[in-house]
Amino acid sequence: MESEKGLVYVTRKLHFNAAHKLYNPSWSDEKNFEVFGKCSNPNWHGHNFDLYVTVKGIPSPETGFVINLKVLKDIVNSVIVDKIDHRNINLDVDFMKGKIATIENLAIAMWYELLPHLHGVKLHCIKIYETERQFVEYFGE
Amino acid sequence: MESEKGLVYVTRKLHFNAAHKLYNPSWSDEKNFEVFGKCSNPNWHGHNFDLYVTVKGIPSPETGFVINLKVLKDIVNSVIVDKIDHRNINLDVDFMKGKIATIENLAIAMWYELLPHLHGVKLHCIKIYETERQFVEYFGE
Amino acid sequence: MESEKGLVYVTRKLHFNAAHKLYNPSWSDEKNFEVFGKCSNPNWHGHNFDLYVTVKGIPSPETGFVINLKVLKDIVNSVIVDKIDHRNINLDVDFMKGKIATIENLAIAMWYELLPHLHGVKLHCIKIYETERQFVEYFGE
Amino acid sequence: MESEKGLVYVTRKLHFNAAHKLYNPSWSDEKNFEVFGKCSNPNWHGHNFDLYVTVKGIPSPETGFVINLKVLKDIVNSVIVDKIDHRNINLDVDFMKGKIATIENLAIAMWYELLPHLHGVKLHCIKIYETERQFVEYFGE
Amino acid sequence: MESEKGLVYVTRKLHFNAAHKLYNPSWSDEKNFEVFGKCSNPNWHGHNFDLYVTVKGIPSPETGFVINLKVLKDIVNSVIVDKIDHRNINLDVDFMKGKIATIENLAIAMWYELLPHLHGVKLHCIKIYETERQFVEYFGE
Amino acid sequence: MESEKGLVYVTRKLHFNAAHKLYNPSWSDEKNFEVFGKCSNPNWHGHNFDLYVTVKGIPSPETGFVINLKVLKDIVNSVIVDKIDHRNINLDVDFMKGKIATIENLAIAMWYELLPHLHGVKLHCIKIYETERQFVEYFGE
Repeated sequence: MESEKGLVYVTRKLHFNAAHKLYNPSWSDEKNFEVFGKCSNPNWHGHNFDLYVTVKGIPSPETGFVINLKVLKDIVNSVIVDKIDHRNINLDVDFMKGKIATIENLAIAMWYELLPHLHGVKLHCIKIYETERQFVEYFGE
Repeated sequence: MESEKGLVYVTRKLHFNAAHKLYNPSWSDEKNFEVFGKCSNPNWHGHNFDLYVTVKGIPSPETGFVINLKVLKDIVNSVIVDKIDHRNINLDVDFMKGKIATIENLAIAMWYELLPHLHGVKLHCIKIYETERQFVEYFGE
Repeated sequence: MESEKGLVYVTRKLHFNAAHKLYNPSWSDEKNFEVFGKCSNPNWHGHNFDLYVTVKGIPSPETGFVINLKVLKDIVNSVIVDKIDHRNINLDVDFMKGKIATIENLAIAMWYELLPHLHGVKLHCIKIYETERQFVEYFGE
Repeated sequence: MESEKGLVYVTRKLHFNAAHKLYNPSWSDEKNFEVFGKCSNPNWHGHNFDLYVTVKGIPSPETGFVINLKVLKDIVNSVIVDKIDHRNINLDVDFMKGKIATIENLAIAMWYELLPHLHGVKLHCIKIYETERQFVEYFGE
Repeated sequence: MESEKGLVYVTRKLHFNAAHKLYNPSWSDEKNFEVFGKCSNPNWHGHNFDLYVTVKGIPSPETGFVINLKVLKDIVNSVIVDKIDHRNINLDVDFMKGKIATIENLAIAMWYELLPHLHGVKLHCIKIYETERQFVEYFGE
Repeated sequence: MESEKGLVYVTRKLHFNAAHKLYNPSWSDEKNFEVFGKCSNPNWHGHNFDLYVTVKGIPSPETGFVINLKVLKDIVNSVIVDKIDHRNINLDVDFMKGKIATIENLAIAMWYELLPHLHGVKLHCIKIYETERQFVEYFGE
């Protein structure tokens, strides 16, 4: 079937519910509280995180898809979401070991987890909402 | 100033971010996992909880308010939100001690925490969203 | 066509953008500021108000409708929304003259504006959001 | 574990994407267009429907649950959602055969589909959003 | 009136409710089901589509507008929305004839429909949400 | 602590409720109504404005932050939000004096208000929603 050609950006939203704390282990509890406030609570707190994965490519003439979003969803779930959903980001997630559990670091780490699993499309953005009021984006720069 | 009289229901939305796990301490970990699934993860998980507090009353002729919502917000914050926001519901929250940390139990507990602090209005409903997809309401019945 | 019979509640959401201030003209500016805070700003402020009108009735066997929602929308627009959208609630809206411009008073006033224009269905609720965080409901009680 | 007793209302949101048209087969196309407008388009149109199922009961002392929401979700999916999601409501859905495909009729029909499958809780409400601006509720009255 | 100069991106959201199916007519039904799953249902399904049109330009010193958004809305409605709202994308929409009815192809087609009707501003992006969880963007690249 | 390096975009959402009118004082009321329609209502109207401030930078190895979002929030509140929230944009806001009160002009003005107060990060975008259906973005171009 015929269509105009063009580069299209395709996004799938996923979500995960996780516990974390913002905490630098080389600092005292007092220093951590001073920098991170109540986000450093030793007994953890948590969020409903929203994750947006954007890829780009030219739609296939045969399917009209840049990528089958069911396939993209399955990849992101197996590579990222299944490892972090209903977990503790500081304790349970291998790709966050040794890193401070901010969404900045999470976005960069998820980019590098996901990249080797995407074929035929280009990863464009990892966007993470921690709350409705704060979110980060990483474009691989 | 003159207005028609009438009973109006007034709602204030608040929110808190907290960690919890669903866990019955009289059961084995296996039994907990069987009943609660990944919600029983020993290292916790968490949510952005939305809390809606509804009161009812007749608007004052002098202010047009059933209750000044800034006052209601301050009461709910000091009695409930400040004790649970950025905390662990199972470990840190006095009014949830000895209870399973479901939002059903949370709604009932919050009702009884808040009730003695409301004067001149009638508490109508405590509504809690755990995720966008699941929520509970308690009307004091 | 045959269907089970039953009483169904039908809701239409509308919206209007308006200016207002919370101000009791029998008080001084200082007293108004003390009670209403920044909501008493003499030069006004404003909101995107969401309005939900709920009616109830038994769906017609011929249409499956309790009421044609296009008809309900047109009634609410002509009776309420066209008089308040992009207006000043304190200065421009006849049915709010002499009343303090709270959403409590607004909900009651809108109920009595709308009631005579609804036929064949029963008005159940007027719900108004002033912000995402605060809303009121009036059920004609 | 001990908690205050109380009747709690528990809601699970689900969704389905379906095609339909509003059409009374005992009428001409012209009459259908006159009553239903563009919603009678012979080649169908469609929506992302949101479905909220509310049940009520007393939380179990052992689980803190009125009902395990995973169980409720599975029941609603197998009894309702799997039969209507990505389908044509007029042509493909057995429990809507011979009924006009309004959300009023849909809510009543879903109530009677779901009722025999719920045990230990009381069905309270079926709420369906057709668009963000219009929704219906059925309480079994 | 004087303001700093600058290039501003202005977006108007619109929406349409339509039926479609994902289906390549050069394939068997079985092959279509294999590739598109339940989205290939022969009797159609549908969505509430959200459409965001973004243009860019320098605000006029006389109006403070890049473009009067009422004008932009009227253009997009007459050129795009009126042709697709409450229609079947595969059967009823001229600019989608001979194309697979994905939102990728839809975004590209809408770009070329809209482009000749915009004067004095530059079209920047067509963004379409099919569900809250999946959307595409086309920037004319 | 070690993490991959990378440039991350961080966004904080804030909001303000304000009155305004779209009005060019060098025109007659009739001309203003012709161009701006009901937005030129002499007695004002208002909105719940949403404001998104995006900055970019490389997360600190010590905190995992591009910027502490509490710090960013406090800066934006003191430099912008406190001056416009619950105010009249045309009458009360110094940085909008002599400008037409569109969100295009508002976004540019806020950029230049905020810029001198940000250190160690680069301001990337000011995004303002006037309603859910219309918003603008300014990137300092």
